[in-house]
Amino acid sequence: MIKAKGYASLKAKAPLTPFSFERRDPKDHDVVIDIKFCGICHSDIHMVRDEWGFASPFPMVPGHEIAGVVRAVGPKVTKYKVGDHVGVGCMVDSCRECAHCEQDLENYCIPGNTGTYGAMERDGSAVTQGGYSDIIVVNEDFVLRIPDNLPLDKAAPLLCAGITTYSPLRHWNAGPGKKVGVLGLGGLGHMAVKIASAMGAHVVVLSHSEKKREDAKKLGAHEFVVTKDAEVLKQNGLSFDLIINTVSSADLDMASFFNLLKLDGTLVSVGAPDKPLTFHPFPLIMMRRNYAGSVIGSIKETQEMLDFCGKHNITSEIEVISPKQVNEAYERVLKSDIRYRFVLDMSQL
Amino acid sequence: MIKAKGYASLKAKAPLTPFSFERRDPKDHDVVIDIKFCGICHSDIHMVRDEWGFASPFPMVPGHEIAGVVRAVGPKVTKYKVGDHVGVGCMVDSCRECAHCEQDLENYCIPGNTGTYGAMERDGSAVTQGGYSDIIVVNEDFVLRIPDNLPLDKAAPLLCAGITTYSPLRHWNAGPGKKVGVLGLGGLGHMAVKIASAMGAHVVVLSHSEKKREDAKKLGAHEFVVTKDAEVLKQNGLSFDLIINTVSSADLDMASFFNLLKLDGTLVSVGAPDKPLTFHPFPLIMMRRNYAGSVIGSIKETQEMLDFCGKHNITSEIEVISPKQVNEAYERVLKSDIRYRFVLDMSQL
Repeated sequence: MIKAKGYASLKAKAPLTPFSFERRDPKDHDVVIDIKFCGICHSDIHMVRDEWGFASPFPMVPGHEIAGVVRAVGPKVTKYKVGDHVGVGCMVDSCRECAHCEQDLENYCIPGNTGTYGAMERDGSAVTQGGYSDIIVVNEDFVLRIPDNLPLDKAAPLLCAGITTYSPLRHWNAGPGKKVGVLGLGGLGHMAVKIASAMGAHVVVLSHSEKKREDAKKLGAHEFVVTKDAEVLKQNGLSFDLIINTVSSADLDMASFFNLLKLDGTLVSVGAPDKPLTFHPFPLIMMRRNYAGSVIGSIKETQEMLDFCGKHNITSEIEVISPKQVNEAYERVLKSDIRYRFVLDMSQL
Repeated sequence: MIKAKGYASLKAKAPLTPFSFERRDPKDHDVVIDIKFCGICHSDIHMVRDEWGFASPFPMVPGHEIAGVVRAVGPKVTKYKVGDHVGVGCMVDSCRECAHCEQDLENYCIPGNTGTYGAMERDGSAVTQGGYSDIIVVNEDFVLRIPDNLPLDKAAPLLCAGITTYSPLRHWNAGPGKKVGVLGLGGLGHMAVKIASAMGAHVVVLSHSEKKREDAKKLGAHEFVVTKDAEVLKQNGLSFDLIINTVSSADLDMASFFNLLKLDGTLVSVGAPDKPLTFHPFPLIMMRRNYAGSVIGSIKETQEMLDFCGKHNITSEIEVISPKQVNEAYERVLKSDIRYRFVLDMSQL
């Protein structure tokens, strides 16, 4: 076994504390990765606090925005070699034989893919532990290549925030001639703006206040709409092809955002609220609009996204912190006091 | 002016009573239609009782499933001649110049189409009155041709129940190789079963009880699923390409129906509940599913539907009644005590 150290929550809702544990020795197709950086995703907080009711196992080392360097490879690994810059996202395995896995859609694996942390390995050997740690061992099929021109710290958040927004933008055809709204300018939203803009879409940030207007422009948005102004919302009615909803609050006035969509337009939620939504379907019915959801992206699509980001030099806006500061960072995430992603520097472990 | 008689509600929530009124003399492009039959749609009840908060004008002659025979035509009418079998559906005009009207999508007219009853004519000359009457005058562009092989009484409900289900079935590609669910077997649902089946789809009726199992088969359904059985619902999970939701109750457990959809599947609501829906978007997010709405269909599509029904000999299952029985019929509609559509026989006016 390989000794690993990191930060874990020892039980649900407990703060994170230093934690020593073990990783498996590399099997034939495993890649051993020295983790250099790991992003903090809002869902880490939901998981650590057991807010989705998953009853996940503890102790839990969170983290699924992992960027690092290959330290060693198993004897049959063909895709990676020592020294490669690699990443690991939200999953480390899947059933590999269901209809969705066969279509390269492991993110929609029917029996369920294996989460990077808080899940049981498919062979039942161990609970997976995530990226708030110094080392990880992952099957090569679930390791991604990070383009050499992207710095690892700024690239780490691409593994979740990047792919979570890239996938629906691609699936619903964001591109030239399309008006794309990004609802909420946070960790996911700021990536959606950069990616949609690089795809050639006309990008509009939909934000509840004026505060991030200048930021939105710098990130590549073409317009900024303050959503608390009902008159401004009305003026923007029936004009969007696609809206990516990165706000997971259940208190959103969904109808007012549906009304922004064109006929046949789609609003896609990429984050799960902690309670049900309530809305009247009238705006969907009266203009044949769609409300959809999307979760991360497949391995193939994640690699495509990383290559796209490499080509367009897209990375995340980050604040690098020591793992010691993780609990404080969580509090700031909950207050939206971060522009736009915390990244843990594992050299400070 | 042309003298007309029918049944009207004199004020919101009042029962329908005999009512005399006038229709305009035919203008250049108007068709004068002797109404033979008019279906009773659940939305007539919502409208008469002002349950959607539209504040529509009264007295109100409801009815938008109109089948009749051309009595006279205006001097410039080219599409119809005296004696033709024709129908009128949910709209009698639209702006004719917005982006949607220009694409032959008058049902999604941006300033709003002119409802067959309870709306102001676009020239402000009169409030429209519907088909619970003996005669109607409609611009030829909003008159439909009913194929000669379809009896007018059984064809009347095609003008709303038929097109309301045909349009989403067509739009979301119901056909061979597709598994289509029909949620609710009533006026709309039974048309959806017949049409989807004629389109070549594998049709499954989703009904809350066993009661209509035999009916469903006779109508052309291939399977019947009782939705109150959680185990049966689970067995049917991830298997539907499309579900047409004809149940407008806000108390539906939407999540349980979303779970029936395949990856990228769509559930379409074609009826508006009288209060908001509440559901958690998790089933949409976790399998990239869609929740959509659809309202009636365009004039072009309605003609296409009528021709399709003529070709496949599809009509509605009806109970023909005298207009005198309309209030009693409303009560039976509210109790779902009709298989499957009441049609008023105007010869008994």
